Amino acid sequence: MRNIKLIIEYDGTNYHGWQSQKNNASTIQAAIQAAVGRLTGEDCKLIGSGRTDAGVHALGQVANFKTGSKIPAERFSYALNSLLPPDIVIKKSEEAGMDFHSRYSARGKKYKYLIYNSPHPSALLRNRACHVAQALDYDSMSKAALCFAGTHDFLAFSASGRNVKNSVRTIARASLNRIERCNCVSSQGEGGSACIYEFEIEGDGFLYNMVRIIAGTLIEVGLGRISAGSVPGIIEGRDRKMAGKTAPACGLYLAEVYY
Amino acid sequence: MRNIKLIIEYDGTNYHGWQSQKNNASTIQAAIQAAVGRLTGEDCKLIGSGRTDAGVHALGQVANFKTGSKIPAERFSYALNSLLPPDIVIKKSEEAGMDFHSRYSARGKKYKYLIYNSPHPSALLRNRACHVAQALDYDSMSKAALCFAGTHDFLAFSASGRNVKNSVRTIARASLNRIERCNCVSSQGEGGSACIYEFEIEGDGFLYNMVRIIAGTLIEVGLGRISAGSVPGIIEGRDRKMAGKTAPACGLYLAEVYY
Repeated sequence: MRNIKLIIEYDGTNYHGWQSQKNNASTIQAAIQAAVGRLTGEDCKLIGSGRTDAGVHALGQVANFKTGSKIPAERFSYALNSLLPPDIVIKKSEEAGMDFHSRYSARGKKYKYLIYNSPHPSALLRNRACHVAQALDYDSMSKAALCFAGTHDFLAFSASGRNVKNSVRTIARASLNRIERCNCVSSQGEGGSACIYEFEIEGDGFLYNMVRIIAGTLIEVGLGRISAGSVPGIIEGRDRKMAGKTAPACGLYLAEVYY
Repeated sequence: MRNIKLIIEYDGTNYHGWQSQKNNASTIQAAIQAAVGRLTGEDCKLIGSGRTDAGVHALGQVANFKTGSKIPAERFSYALNSLLPPDIVIKKSEEAGMDFHSRYSARGKKYKYLIYNSPHPSALLRNRACHVAQALDYDSMSKAALCFAGTHDFLAFSASGRNVKNSVRTIARASLNRIERCNCVSSQGEGGSACIYEFEIEGDGFLYNMVRIIAGTLIEVGLGRISAGSVPGIIEGRDRKMAGKTAPACGLYLAEVYY
């Protein structure tokens, strides 16, 4: 037996998330398991680094499966891509040690959250970024973004009603970039005001909906509804009601998993 | 009567191009005409700056229509966006002089062509960029791109079989940028080799398929099949067979129309 590690990009728009479901809903895990099964003739059990919700994208989701197949490890990506729909792409396949486990071996993850800020939505970035029509204050958002770095109890940024034994997480880096020029942003017709805000966050782990609640909080900071200065207190307060709304799934990208 | 000018962004993936067709195929022009008709109660004749083919996108297509409606010009964008599908967005609406004609008044246009260069295709940029799996030589492509600036007879870069009275066009600017870091490009799993090449070209007019044939020629230069030094001779030769293949529609964007 061998253990094959996959690095996966997907457009989550048309899927009910990563995780296979009992009701046979279309999921990314099920699509890849089916492709591996067709290729190897084996019943594939694909282990992902973690779930992503419906509509969430990945630039570097990681998954692994065990197989008796003799296909060279690096050929799995090409063979699987020929069987997968075009909104799921295996970017790399490689042999991992038999004890490698995509979820248990992960040391950390990086997520991105994209906000498209313009009076009108974007046709080309629909389903790829969260649209905010009102002007956002970049300086305040950027200052607020930095507050999330460090070791904190992130209970205020966890979906309410979820039981979490330990809501302390360590965020190695959190920052907001403003992208003025991008292949999908054109200044024409937008008075130069259209831009993308890219929030990046790296940490040892994330609570359920944590990045989307942080993004939603940053948007409210940008709109002036929450002050950047009050963000450390919101973190300390451990009260979900003090943080912003959960920002939509379409802006979220699982960018990288660290081992 | 008033003359309303629209600036339009669209994802051309799901349309049979800009221009309304007799067979009732789904087109961008027809979708906008129908929305204007619903809004004003008038029969709308929408004039575009020019056609785009099936699958081609726009960041700044321009169109105009005459109306007796009293809706303030700048409100048309908001009202139309509430009626249009999300892959067509009116970015701006404004009042134009009665003699403004989107096509006849145009002084020039800017197009972009995006090439995604990576061993595997991109799930997130599928339908948004042309995928090239083999490594491309940026220096040669960049040098070749500059050759298109100036006034030339572009017959070699016109779809064969088309009657063109005058195939001389003036290109004000043609350049290729390499984008290493983009919201849809992640280095993980691609050995740092994934990037986007963005070709930009501005001119007073373009022959049918001209930008896609130039892009196809640049790709062949990048692959080493055509040398950058031979490009001026290919232009001068006025022979379609000497230029590269027509690159796919999905990489092409009508970026701006100048008046």
